[in-house]
Order: sequence, then C-alpha cells, then structure tokens
Amino acid sequence: MSPSSVPDYAFAAPFRVPAISPIRSLAVYANRPGTISMSGGYPATDLFDVEGLNAASAKVGARLSDCLQYSNIDGQASLRAQLARLSEERGIRCDPDTELAVTGGSQQSLALLARVMLQPGDAAVIESPCFPNSRQALHYTGATLYTAPSGPDGVDVDALEELVERVRPKLVSVVATFSNPCGATLSLERRRRLVELAARYRFLLVEDDPYGELRFEGETVPPLLALAEGDARHWVVYISSMSKTMAPALRIGWMIAPAEVRRRCVSAKASDDMASSAWIQEIVAQYVEDGRYHVHVPRIRASYAARADALARALSEELGDQLSFRKPQGGMFCWARLNGGIDSTRLLPYAIDHEVVYVPGKAFYIDPAQADMQAMRLSFATMNEEQIRTGIVRLRQALHACAEGKPATVALPA
Amino acid sequence: MSPSSVPDYAFAAPFRVPAISPIRSLAVYANRPGTISMSGGYPATDLFDVEGLNAASAKVGARLSDCLQYSNIDGQASLRAQLARLSEERGIRCDPDTELAVTGGSQQSLALLARVMLQPGDAAVIESPCFPNSRQALHYTGATLYTAPSGPDGVDVDALEELVERVRPKLVSVVATFSNPCGATLSLERRRRLVELAARYRFLLVEDDPYGELRFEGETVPPLLALAEGDARHWVVYISSMSKTMAPALRIGWMIAPAEVRRRCVSAKASDDMASSAWIQEIVAQYVEDGRYHVHVPRIRASYAARADALARALSEELGDQLSFRKPQGGMFCWARLNGGIDSTRLLPYAIDHEVVYVPGKAFYIDPAQADMQAMRLSFATMNEEQIRTGIVRLRQALHACAEGKPATVALPA
Repeated sequence: MSPSSVPDYAFAAPFRVPAISPIRSLAVYANRPGTISMSGGYPATDLFDVEGLNAASAKVGARLSDCLQYSNIDGQASLRAQLARLSEERGIRCDPDTELAVTGGSQQSLALLARVMLQPGDAAVIESPCFPNSRQALHYTGATLYTAPSGPDGVDVDALEELVERVRPKLVSVVATFSNPCGATLSLERRRRLVELAARYRFLLVEDDPYGELRFEGETVPPLLALAEGDARHWVVYISSMSKTMAPALRIGWMIAPAEVRRRCVSAKASDDMASSAWIQEIVAQYVEDGRYHVHVPRIRASYAARADALARALSEELGDQLSFRKPQGGMFCWARLNGGIDSTRLLPYAIDHEVVYVPGKAFYIDPAQADMQAMRLSFATMNEEQIRTGIVRLRQALHACAEGKPATVALPA
Repeated sequence: MSPSSVPDYAFAAPFRVPAISPIRSLAVYANRPGTISMSGGYPATDLFDVEGLNAASAKVGARLSDCLQYSNIDGQASLRAQLARLSEERGIRCDPDTELAVTGGSQQSLALLARVMLQPGDAAVIESPCFPNSRQALHYTGATLYTAPSGPDGVDVDALEELVERVRPKLVSVVATFSNPCGATLSLERRRRLVELAARYRFLLVEDDPYGELRFEGETVPPLLALAEGDARHWVVYISSMSKTMAPALRIGWMIAPAEVRRRCVSAKASDDMASSAWIQEIVAQYVEDGRYHVHVPRIRASYAARADALARALSEELGDQLSFRKPQGGMFCWARLNGGIDSTRLLPYAIDHEVVYVPGKAFYIDPAQADMQAMRLSFATMNEEQIRTGIVRLRQALHACAEGKPATVALPA
C-alpha cells in the first residue's frame, strides 16, 4: 500500500491549493495541556445541558423505530414547528412548510444558499473582517467575492451601497448581531437601510444569526427579516443554529427563506447529504418541547455575562492602555486592538510561549493588505472567569517578552 | 406577510428549474394507507436494531459532555478506527488518519468528491441507468455528464473504455455490487479492467458501495479499491454508508481516498457543514465496538434473502411470462422487465389504483430516449414476505386492467 509518487490530480480550481483554516491551525497550540485558549469559537463545554439532552434522548429512544428512516429533506415536521416558534419569538413569522428548512447548521445554510444563487461570473459580498468558513462557502461557488468594510459597529452601509451599486451582487452575507470576529451589533437604522438596499438592488440579503439569543446586556435589535415588509420580504433570508445555544455536535440549524429560494436549497441538500439525521432532529425538537431550551439559554447568558465581565476587567486592569476594546453585550467574542502599533501576529508566538492563545485579526481578512494587524479576537465563552483572568495575565507577560525583543520559542508560518 | 409577486431570482444555472426527484414524487402514492410500496430505497423499518442502538446511545449518554463539541472535520478518531476495521474485512487496508474520512453518507461522499474534482468544462461519467441523486451530485458541479451503458451485469466496460478515450473524464462513478437500480454485480474480470482503465486514463474511479454487505447468495467479489495496486491506488476511491446496514437517520458514511484527494474533500466538508455530528458518530462507533454490527448485518441478510425469495416466487407464479427478471443475490433491488412491449410508465397509474407502487425504469435515465421503458425497479427490502406476495398479486391485477384499456383513476405527470 505504498503507492508511487502522487500524480497531478487536476483538481477543480477552488481546490488546487487546499484551504488551511487559520483558526484550526492554531488548535495544535490551543490544545496543549495547561494552555488557555481564547482562540476557538467553541461554546463552553462546562455549560452543556447534558442532563436535559439525555432526557430528550431517552424520550426519543422510547420511540426510536419511528426516527431511523430517511427524513424529509427539509426536516422533520416536529422540529420545523418548534423552530418556527423560536423564530417567532425573535420577531419572524413564517410558514414552517414552505419557508423554513432544517439544515446541518448555519454553515450548511449559507453553503446551500450560495450554491443555488452563485456561479462563476456572479458577484457576492461579505463583510471584512469575517469568519473564514463563511467566505469559503461563497468562494467555492466560483463567484467573485467582494468585501464591505465592517468593524465594531458592524458593516458600513454607505460603503456597502457604493459597492452594491458598482458590482451588483446576487448575494450579500452579514452577521448583524454579535458578529464574528468583531462582536458587533448593527443599529436598527443600519438594519433598515440594509433591508431597503436588498429590495432596491435585488440581492439576497442573508443574515447569519447564531449568537442573537446570547445577549446579556443592552436592548434586543430585531433580525433583518423581522424588518422586511412587502417586496423586501422576497430578498431577506434568516439563518440560525443550535450550535451555540444547545451544542455544536447536534449539527442542526435552519433557514427561513422565500419559498422559491428554499425549494432550491432543499433540492441542493438532497444531492449534498439527502437530509439531516432524523434521530438528532427529534432529540432537538423534544428538548425544545420539554421547555429545556428556554431554561438553558438564560443560563448560558448569565455565565457568558460573568465571563465577558471578567475579561473586560482583566483587560483593563492588566493591560490598561496597551490595548483597546469595547465590552461585549452578548455573543462569544471580544475584538481588541493592541495600542502602540504592536502587531498581533508578531505577538502570537510569545503568547503561545506563555500558554495563552488568541486569533490574530489578520486571520479574518481575505486581503492581507486590508488587515487590521493590531487586532485580535478573544473568545470569552470557552474558559471560566479564573482562566480568563490567568489568560490575560499571561498575555501581559507575553507583551512584555515581545517588547524585550528576545526570540520566541514557537515559529509560526507567515 | 403576503409578499407581492415572486421576483426573478436569477438562480445559478443548475437551479433555475428545481429538480424534482422522480422517486420522491411517488411518495404521495406510496404513503397512502394500505398501499404496498416497492418504490423507495428504504431499508426495512421492522429490522432496525432499536435495542442495540439504544444501548449504544445510553453508553454514549454516560459520557455525553465529551461528545457535544465541534468534531474533527474528518470525523471522530474512534469512528474512523472502526470504519477502517470494517473496510479491512472487505479487503481494503487504509490509514484511518490520512485516507479515511467520515461523511454524512454515500451521497455526501460523492458530492464532496465531485466538487473537488469537477468544474464547468470537465467531463464525468456515470452508469445509465443510475440513482438520480448520484447523477445530481455530479451535475451540480457544472461538469458535462456522460453515461456508460449498464444493466443486469453492471457497467459495460468496453463501451466505457471507448467513452473514456473520447471524453477524458476526471471522474467515473459506479456501483459495482448490487447496483441501484439494476441490482447488478460486476464480475471480477470487469472490476480488474475498470481499475486498469482508471490508472491508464488517470480518472478518479469512485465505487459507491452501500449494499455490498447485504449479500445473501453467491460469492463475494472484492471492492475495486481492494484490487488497486501500485499506481492504480492513486485513482480508486471507495465510499460506503451505514444507511442500509444500521439506519439512514444516522447520516453516517465514509470515504477511503488518496490522501491528497481526501484532504480537499475534508476542506470542502468544512465549508459545507463543518463536520458530522460527534454525538451520532460516537453512537455508531460504540455500536460497532459493542459487536452489534456484526450480529445485526447477518440478520438483515437473512431477512432480505427471504424477501427476495418471496418476490422471485411471486413474480414467477403470478406474472409468469409477462415479466422477466433475475433473482437478486443481495442488496435491496430487483430490476424487472415487462414482456410484450408494455410500458412501465403507462402501467404505473393502474398499479397505484391497485395499491402497489414501483419505480418505472425511465426514472433512472438521464436521456429519456435511452430509457428502457419496459423496466421497473422493485425494492424487496421495505416490505415483508406476505406484503410482497400481495403486492405482486395486485401488480398482476393492474396489468390486467391496463390491458383492458380502461382509463386509470390517477393521472401522473409525464
């Protein structure tokens, strides 16, 4: 089984050079025993509602023979009904039979929407900075990807309008609430303008909302689809996920889209993976029906509030004017900037040496020339308050070592 | 929420006309109470090992907090190890860390391979007749799809060689054992020639093997990858699934592919759905580890043997010389042909009237002009022996009604 030299496979263009996730590639350091990782977008393992999930699983187990066949491609009716109810609590009404579909998470929702809308020659727009896997889903369609500048207040709608006017995209993807990586929430006014733009320029406006329910401070701002009326309703899509509220391993998300768009996404899903697991879908539906979801989410919110608080306090106390940030009001991420022109990529090997890991801002930009080299994404979800405090103390020590100019032990690829 | 008239969305080319599965569109009739469905490719619901799956699920439940995070994109190490062992029993050795990846079923394996290999301008080959969702997975890449004639002996390798010489495909997809729809198994000699062709013409030869373990008669023929040596090892991919042996709702399959190909498929999976459910993966790994898999599969085999036997007997006794078929040696499907030039599409409404449903052969051809209009696919897996007998009695009655020329009640779309 030791074949001769590897041939040239002539892969499809987007796969010639295999993508390496800049976040996943840090996992080798983040997973070192003793290291405090603030790098992954992982919800807190210690907060998973193991008891509630096991209870739901036991109930489904009692009727398991009904849950083992192929599912409807668009999802189990029981789960679609529950997800429609959850969405309604967020201000979105929909028909669970024609507008809502179960998917394998936000990532799959976006990938399906991208595939049914985009082909080579088309334009699509995503925020910059943004989550690398989101841009990959758009990129793999072969469409040309443009970026609209974003930041701590979310996407710049003026810049987006100029861009849209110029490149006429078929799809624009945003995270409007507690964005990844910036933790930004778009104002109600910007949201209204976005929805208006979608209807005027006739592009599909996709809001990815995995974090919206994780607000622990400030006032809720309605999702884009809740603001879409009349013709705009044809152009706005809402996608969300159970990964951050229940658990990533469920691989359950959903989309609410115009019927004609949804229909094609369901068709694409049939050829992608036939359907999501009926077994897991029934567990999720049972869990929500049991009322566990509405008990559990406030619990996560309270813990994340305490963790965000611990992070903000540690950053202020330990790093003072060496770093700027805005205290998060929800979600999982804090976007911080090193003052004094210090490059977060240059600092990273020192941080790893000091057993703390973050993601340098650069990882979230398509064009390295546009990257904010001082920025870093700190996740406050994964670690508890004490670990967060320790992590930030270590970050201070790393900054000190970096300033001294001694070489770091770890050598990272550029 | 009643939007104005539906706009023109300018969907990507493959999605302008949404695909309607010719098999799924029969579900409305197949699911009528009292109707005997021999149409779906559904494994027997009454044979699911509910007890074994619940036992595995309970064990995983006891360590559930370890199974709720994001999984490795290529799958849980525990499951990859078990799948490598199962594959070895089928004659395939591989490195579970670099050559094997967990997927969301055979459908996802094929879709991922198609996406990393194919783009508009490329050629791909699939058997004709074939499973419609398989050809969709290739079609959606925008590649040009060619067909190699197939039948009760599997793909015609001479015709394939001519085609390959002419169109130089980058990927050729076959089901070598108990194919869908023909139930055909390729001889050892044809298999060797296929593998040789792949190495000579440098195309990725993908064998989809969801049914191979369901042999209840005759001798096992090794999978293509087991026959690939030296350079050929670079060009043969094996994909398989737990859908027919354990349950479709698991949505668990796997691929064994050259490391460079697998790497890109894993990268495509990251942007498609991040990973398969770690929870379900652990349940499947536990089930196999518990020895249940090796107890359960022989049980399915024995039942399917009895069902195939019942079908063959009923077909001979009830329909005699009105229909030709070969008695299946495994899998789930029997490919039968109506004698006397009777069109299986014309018969279908009469069959539905008589409360029995099959899939007309036409559904499995891309080009209707090539379709075998007398053929039908009969699944013997879903129904028990008595139901099968009743179904075939009804089919005889339907044939009689059709011959009488009275109009059928049901009007099917062309």
